[in-house]
Amino acid sequence: MDAADKASSPRTVTPRDMANAIRALSMDAVEKANSGHPGMPMGMADVATVLFTQFLKFDPKHPKWPDRDRFILSAGHGSMLLYSLLHLTGYADMTLDELKNFRQWGSKTAGHPEYGHATGIETTTGPLGQGIANSVGFALAERILNARFGNDLVNHYTYVIAGDGCLMEGISQEAISLAGHLKLSKLIVLWDDNSITIDGSTDLSTSDDHIARFKASGWATDKVDGHNPEAVAKAIAAAQKNDRPTLIACKTIIGYGAPNKQGTAATHGAALGKDEVAATRQALGWNHEPFVIPAEIQDAWRQAGARGAADFAAWTKRHDADKNHAEFDRVMAGDLPANFAETVSKLKSAIAAEAPKIATRVSSQRVIEALVPVMPELVGGSADLTGSNNTKAKTAAPVKPGNYAGNYVYYGIREHGMAAAMNGLALHGGVIPFGGTFLVFTDYCRPAIRLSALMHQRVIYVMTHDSIGLGEDGPTHQPVEHLAALRAIPNLLVFRPCDTMETAECWALALSTKDQPSVLALTRQNLPLLRADAAVANHCARGGYVIRPAEGARKVTLIASGSEVEIAVAAREKLQAEGIGTTVVSLPCWELFDQQPESYRKDVLGDGVRVAIEAAGGFGWEKYLGEKGVFVGMKSFGASAPAPELYKQFGITAEAAVAAAKSRL
Amino acid sequence: MDAADKASSPRTVTPRDMANAIRALSMDAVEKANSGHPGMPMGMADVATVLFTQFLKFDPKHPKWPDRDRFILSAGHGSMLLYSLLHLTGYADMTLDELKNFRQWGSKTAGHPEYGHATGIETTTGPLGQGIANSVGFALAERILNARFGNDLVNHYTYVIAGDGCLMEGISQEAISLAGHLKLSKLIVLWDDNSITIDGSTDLSTSDDHIARFKASGWATDKVDGHNPEAVAKAIAAAQKNDRPTLIACKTIIGYGAPNKQGTAATHGAALGKDEVAATRQALGWNHEPFVIPAEIQDAWRQAGARGAADFAAWTKRHDADKNHAEFDRVMAGDLPANFAETVSKLKSAIAAEAPKIATRVSSQRVIEALVPVMPELVGGSADLTGSNNTKAKTAAPVKPGNYAGNYVYYGIREHGMAAAMNGLALHGGVIPFGGTFLVFTDYCRPAIRLSALMHQRVIYVMTHDSIGLGEDGPTHQPVEHLAALRAIPNLLVFRPCDTMETAECWALALSTKDQPSVLALTRQNLPLLRADAAVANHCARGGYVIRPAEGARKVTLIASGSEVEIAVAAREKLQAEGIGTTVVSLPCWELFDQQPESYRKDVLGDGVRVAIEAAGGFGWEKYLGEKGVFVGMKSFGASAPAPELYKQFGITAEAAVAAAKSRL
Repeated sequence: MDAADKASSPRTVTPRDMANAIRALSMDAVEKANSGHPGMPMGMADVATVLFTQFLKFDPKHPKWPDRDRFILSAGHGSMLLYSLLHLTGYADMTLDELKNFRQWGSKTAGHPEYGHATGIETTTGPLGQGIANSVGFALAERILNARFGNDLVNHYTYVIAGDGCLMEGISQEAISLAGHLKLSKLIVLWDDNSITIDGSTDLSTSDDHIARFKASGWATDKVDGHNPEAVAKAIAAAQKNDRPTLIACKTIIGYGAPNKQGTAATHGAALGKDEVAATRQALGWNHEPFVIPAEIQDAWRQAGARGAADFAAWTKRHDADKNHAEFDRVMAGDLPANFAETVSKLKSAIAAEAPKIATRVSSQRVIEALVPVMPELVGGSADLTGSNNTKAKTAAPVKPGNYAGNYVYYGIREHGMAAAMNGLALHGGVIPFGGTFLVFTDYCRPAIRLSALMHQRVIYVMTHDSIGLGEDGPTHQPVEHLAALRAIPNLLVFRPCDTMETAECWALALSTKDQPSVLALTRQNLPLLRADAAVANHCARGGYVIRPAEGARKVTLIASGSEVEIAVAAREKLQAEGIGTTVVSLPCWELFDQQPESYRKDVLGDGVRVAIEAAGGFGWEKYLGEKGVFVGMKSFGASAPAPELYKQFGITAEAAVAAAKSRL
Repeated sequence: MDAADKASSPRTVTPRDMANAIRALSMDAVEKANSGHPGMPMGMADVATVLFTQFLKFDPKHPKWPDRDRFILSAGHGSMLLYSLLHLTGYADMTLDELKNFRQWGSKTAGHPEYGHATGIETTTGPLGQGIANSVGFALAERILNARFGNDLVNHYTYVIAGDGCLMEGISQEAISLAGHLKLSKLIVLWDDNSITIDGSTDLSTSDDHIARFKASGWATDKVDGHNPEAVAKAIAAAQKNDRPTLIACKTIIGYGAPNKQGTAATHGAALGKDEVAATRQALGWNHEPFVIPAEIQDAWRQAGARGAADFAAWTKRHDADKNHAEFDRVMAGDLPANFAETVSKLKSAIAAEAPKIATRVSSQRVIEALVPVMPELVGGSADLTGSNNTKAKTAAPVKPGNYAGNYVYYGIREHGMAAAMNGLALHGGVIPFGGTFLVFTDYCRPAIRLSALMHQRVIYVMTHDSIGLGEDGPTHQPVEHLAALRAIPNLLVFRPCDTMETAECWALALSTKDQPSVLALTRQNLPLLRADAAVANHCARGGYVIRPAEGARKVTLIASGSEVEIAVAAREKLQAEGIGTTVVSLPCWELFDQQPESYRKDVLGDGVRVAIEAAGGFGWEKYLGEKGVFVGMKSFGASAPAPELYKQFGITAEAAVAAAKSRL
């Protein structure tokens, strides 16, 4: 076949043929795995074909092209839609064998799209609503970078396919509301309006008018037959032009093509079965063996995949000529600025000299004030607790609707939406997001925090008011189980610094760790500076270390984090006064400590009586306490009263620690 | 003062005077505590006065009257509004001294309203959005009980005051959507539309048209000046009559009356300060000392509080004459039916006889099938995973819009809304809610699960697909850290039964425990029956027990929960075959086990080598393992593959348990 033949062959291929290739691959892969969700890919195949063949700016040969359009499959259970598209358009790593290994050990084709498994997967989806909320971050990153680097380098769309499930989840409202407010006009959501959920008809559980709902949040809306390519194309073209984010309701038939099951929940989450697969082939006129795509259809898809090559070349030319391209490349690579270490070092010296007695949330603000001017890629924010979380640098400018030349986001009272948007910001690249709320409200963000960890994203959660030390707000606002619950998440760094020096060190670690998210647990109440050594070494990098050695023979080790290190130091003085050699260990990060060599950990923890002090539940502390150890902390929910009273009433005091140690000597 | 005088005195008192009493008490209490939120009570005082003096059906002398209207302060930070109202209307336990002790240790007047601290507090609020989502449960319980017991016994409204924060939280969308779908017409939400959040003007972060948004979910809506009592009264009267839930947007000025600070974020979350308090007194014409209420205003409020006495008397008469009143009293008291124990006992015998090899989610369905017919108070549901969670009994009837004669709720893809609605159902009383989703999505419900525990509510979370055993859906759907994260919550029972017998026992415990919520973690995959003893004793009641004793001298103890008990039993056989005496401990509930006497726990855990096996992260297991113990389980997130492959790849096998035990012998 010569070049002319190749070029002419697509003329005989219709959009429906191309969509049917997606349908066939999807039902065949699900059938082979005997597991998965064929209904959505089959229903949305026509819409996706229009998007990928006419609109989406992408180049499978350069999947990390920074200015590519982003495609987010929020309805992640329809993963075969995405895998089919990646294969058909020519992503080299999405081979036919991968499709045949759908949902098998070691394949790139996991049950739900997993970021990092294959190129072209922009984010991990599956937990409903996360993708559409990520997309707000993607679209926001695009605008912020556009404001910084201009149209030549950054100017792309973010497209989302979302299902009824995504739109029913509360997080979608937070996302929609924030995107509408910020007028993120390059965000286009294609809603798979198929009226079916796992339980059956959407009538069982919802009567929402989503079009009206999106309008209420300032979106443009449209409604099309999702099986009419011209209508879909017209709607997307219009959406690209307006000044608001757009929802396009695409009325579809779930499992389109399966003659006996289409339009029903039976196609949603299970293989169609041999007979129905055969009947579908018949109905679609698709007379090809499983996983076989006719050459002319494959060619048409490859040509769709080749559409972006010229755009990529033009962009590369602009990029190379741009005077800011080195800085652009740096932030897109996620590298820290050259003067990062020096900035942190200077800050630590200043802290040592000043010895401030301030809350670690205020310490955190000092770090932010020092770093924001040298790290324009930092994008801060808070879920309506700016003054309490101390997240806004004086030099930070708010991002505003239509004006994205800023580096601070008023996320509103939308903790979950904030966290998911931060995932999108981090995944887009070019920015490093941090955002604040109270530590207790990590519960509201937890599904998104988990995804930060699963996706290895550098998202920094600034979580203040980290214990009963917040006082009067009472048990609803006092985290008790949250440190444990966060420490239990794989791949998440949980930092709880004890003073301003440790806060600077923990921030430096959070920023230096490119492939993990961090939670900074910070106090509302003031804490003294316990370490005036501004040595180059970052003590917190080892997770735990001796902050006060014993005088004389070491009999007792007091282990604490955050605000309780001060109490441990006071308890040590009392014990030393009685001639009991006592070491204090500060343990700001369990995850980093657990990675240290066993010899180091043994040296730090010592052989004597161990007492752990933390104004939180003791769940998990047994790991460090050994059989003779005692935990001094919370055994219940907190209460409403001034903080000093609470520490006294709940028995988290130097006296209690002393008594605990002596009880085991 | 004789009765005639008393009756006439209110004539001189205006609604504004009465509202000002709330304002004064609120600002004075916050001032004395130097902590709290005066702005909302001062802004909503007029609206609340209308509600409590003209509409709310209540009797402070009978605060537990089952047919009282429910008042939910969703904007819980405005707690002084509620405390003021309870005091002024004559709740005996809300004394003036309690108001003076606002936010102090041991007072009934916590920073946020805490259920159980004082009568008249219907639910604990503060975490935003929870109250409005609870209210869906309250309103639904009312309709379900009305359908069951008729207008004579149950016929009341649920009123909510919600703020901008409540409406920005995603959970509010789930609540609004569900309430609109179900046409819960007796639910009336008064939105404190003050355009202010903590960060400043709502313009900073939102442009939502809430009226349009509620309409999109099928609500009736209205908009009034919140400082115009006649307008508010007219709107509430209209809302009572329509056939849909109603949102009344009450345009208010936050901190109304504070001449220099009203209408600004400065009144939101801090005391007004001495000068502004004085200026407010002046501006309001309130010439009374702090905490002093003039007799005529106090009298007017007490008369408002006395409005409900006649209603209560009439209701009592109807109640006593009602042929179903004994059953009504039983379900409102939350007592189990007389044949509960017998039903469970018969079920256990049947299980022992049949020895089914089924997933524990299916075991759970068997329990549900047995109990639903004898417990009409059970209200089941699922967040769109009915067939997967196995939560619907064949005999269960769905609750439908306008037809509430049912006991099953299609909650839709709204895990958080479901959990919060279940809190409302439980708090209302008369029903016992259970609801399902996947265990991994406890993350989505976590803020509400925490409140179930904090409020001591019997809410039963049926959480299936409880480990990598769910297989192909992959890491986004596989809980790894969730058991630990749930076990860390105070006052929550986390059950993970190993077979059908234990599932029956754990269900019985969850239902018998009136003052604690339970999570049932259940498998997707089949498990053999490991216990065929249908003895009367509930072995799971002790949390953990020896399910297979060692033959010969006990050298090894294998401790497991749920699906891994089968693996432990297999490992024991291998170890015994090598002459190594091995005991298997099933540990379905840590919380109950930890309550047993030390001697029992020591006997069960044994002195030898301990190996714990659980298809989850090991966080927290050190508690039972001692210094020589080993954990066999997950060290990372899961993966997408068939379940048997995953168990093999992640090394959670009998062979691995044997090797672990032998490595320590």
